[in-house]
Amino acid sequence: MIIDCHGHYTTEPKALHAYRQAQIAGLKDPSWRPTKAALAISDDEIRASIDGAQRKLQRERGTDLTIFSPRASGMSHHIGDATVSQYWSEICNDLIYRVCQLFPKNFVPVCQLPQSPGVDPRNCIPELERCVTQMGFIGLNLNPDPSGGYWKEPPLTDRWWYPLYEKMVELEVPAMIHTSASCNPAVHHTGAHYINGDTTAFMQLIVGDLFKDFPTLKFIIPHGGGAVPYHWGRYRGLAQDMKKPLLRDHLLKNVYFDTCVYHQPGIDLLTKVIPADNILFASEIVGAVRGIDPETGFNYDDTKRYVEAATLSAADRTKIFETNAFKVFPRLKAALERR
Amino acid sequence: MIIDCHGHYTTEPKALHAYRQAQIAGLKDPSWRPTKAALAISDDEIRASIDGAQRKLQRERGTDLTIFSPRASGMSHHIGDATVSQYWSEICNDLIYRVCQLFPKNFVPVCQLPQSPGVDPRNCIPELERCVTQMGFIGLNLNPDPSGGYWKEPPLTDRWWYPLYEKMVELEVPAMIHTSASCNPAVHHTGAHYINGDTTAFMQLIVGDLFKDFPTLKFIIPHGGGAVPYHWGRYRGLAQDMKKPLLRDHLLKNVYFDTCVYHQPGIDLLTKVIPADNILFASEIVGAVRGIDPETGFNYDDTKRYVEAATLSAADRTKIFETNAFKVFPRLKAALERR
Repeated sequence: MIIDCHGHYTTEPKALHAYRQAQIAGLKDPSWRPTKAALAISDDEIRASIDGAQRKLQRERGTDLTIFSPRASGMSHHIGDATVSQYWSEICNDLIYRVCQLFPKNFVPVCQLPQSPGVDPRNCIPELERCVTQMGFIGLNLNPDPSGGYWKEPPLTDRWWYPLYEKMVELEVPAMIHTSASCNPAVHHTGAHYINGDTTAFMQLIVGDLFKDFPTLKFIIPHGGGAVPYHWGRYRGLAQDMKKPLLRDHLLKNVYFDTCVYHQPGIDLLTKVIPADNILFASEIVGAVRGIDPETGFNYDDTKRYVEAATLSAADRTKIFETNAFKVFPRLKAALERR
Repeated sequence: MIIDCHGHYTTEPKALHAYRQAQIAGLKDPSWRPTKAALAISDDEIRASIDGAQRKLQRERGTDLTIFSPRASGMSHHIGDATVSQYWSEICNDLIYRVCQLFPKNFVPVCQLPQSPGVDPRNCIPELERCVTQMGFIGLNLNPDPSGGYWKEPPLTDRWWYPLYEKMVELEVPAMIHTSASCNPAVHHTGAHYINGDTTAFMQLIVGDLFKDFPTLKFIIPHGGGAVPYHWGRYRGLAQDMKKPLLRDHLLKNVYFDTCVYHQPGIDLLTKVIPADNILFASEIVGAVRGIDPETGFNYDDTKRYVEAATLSAADRTKIFETNAFKVFPRLKAALERR
């Protein structure tokens, strides 16, 4: 089985965008109060939105299962307040649940959280519990920068985040550390903020000692780990200068990288410097880059081709395509058995 | 000749730090006004600070010339106001000038600018002119984020920066796009802010069309281009989705990457995906990572070894080690002839 651990619902029915636009428009009206309006999206609309996109790509590329979450840029935790974020997260997560109910063989759900700048992460726990215990979600996307490109939250190693981690450990769900849209005009979202978020989060983890306090907590750093594998010597050296343990002991029992790197040399480097035990196959479809690479004739984001062409033993390739996902997502097995 | 295009004066005499500390302490006193106090540093102190460090490493590693600038984190443009930054930049640049006068065979000077958050970059022009026309500086370090980790300035492609670019073109000096210290507790300086700065700047250049307006302007993106070469497919694809020209036409007549990547696989990737015409040898010594890599037995930042071991033709290696520097720094040749 080939499991793509990083897919987003970026082909949502128009009604969802209309709801969000109304929510954002309401923020400008002082008398407006957020409401969780009923959203009329039929099963057929959901089927159509998925069938010609993510499902089609799964068939064409030969992947079996996508661990599926709401559009990452759509989370936009910087918009509105915690209540706005709460209603928006519930709606997006409900929609992911419906996709996974309609296509149980193809998708397993991961949720977004109702984060909001400066708001205690405890606030996210009820929605996380609802998703995991009532709707079978197996993981979450955690935004390390709810301010959307200004980095106003404490580092992920700060006790500020600990109540959320306690709940994650209790529920046995990992987090993908994924920034959302950037509202900073200097910082492009898919070209800078996403990649910087990965790099920044990993460096926060080097500086701290989070996994001493949470030895079973698991994080996935998407987009191939941002800049980290390319600068693996720099990060090993920085950790060494700080008298930290070797990175494999300090972080690699808890931190995983995905394969959302859109050319062969990048995947070759990733699979060379990061142990196969710490790599999860992913494509980010339908995602950041939608075109066909003129140098290969295939889509940039057809990352399965790069993993297949990388110098890997069959055992390591199986880890990356399949078995690591079960290790990182302890609830995945039961979710598949329930289908 | 082997030219290291990225070296910082990170071994400054203690008196410089004392001056800066007094300057910073003064900021807390409302009655304080910045003054450019005389700084008593003897030639012998400068010689001693360089001889056992940068000079020693040049000799040991077999490099000939370092393009030398003040400590990057020391610029800290977020501290104080434009006047504070002005005095501090003058002092740091004067010190670099003295180093280069004392060791004319080993160093050629590059300046920092008196940037300050929100202050018009025009304000930097007099100091740039002073350094280039009076003291023989051949380039500058440009901080794309004077706020120190909060990214409050417009993108580098914004007309906000144009007066500075006009002066750079007139003076024939390139800029290394280099962030400084981070005052953002979420963003580590050498492990996140530097690398993110590189990535962010490159993405700004993709989105804009700066080099249509300044066809001879030259930027160096340090630290191997941040995350960019590792994600070269992503950046090619993003440019393609935005209907931009191929990156080699859009940016590579004006943008160069250095080799401050501290392990062999990183340099192998850099030299594979980026044309040799766009790579400049650099080590960032004495810099971000000071230890010895236990996997190789050599210093992480001994990047010459990686470039020598990379699969490159002799002609391409010469470009990277030597000849590209003359192309990117038009004033280098005359500076060497004046020695």
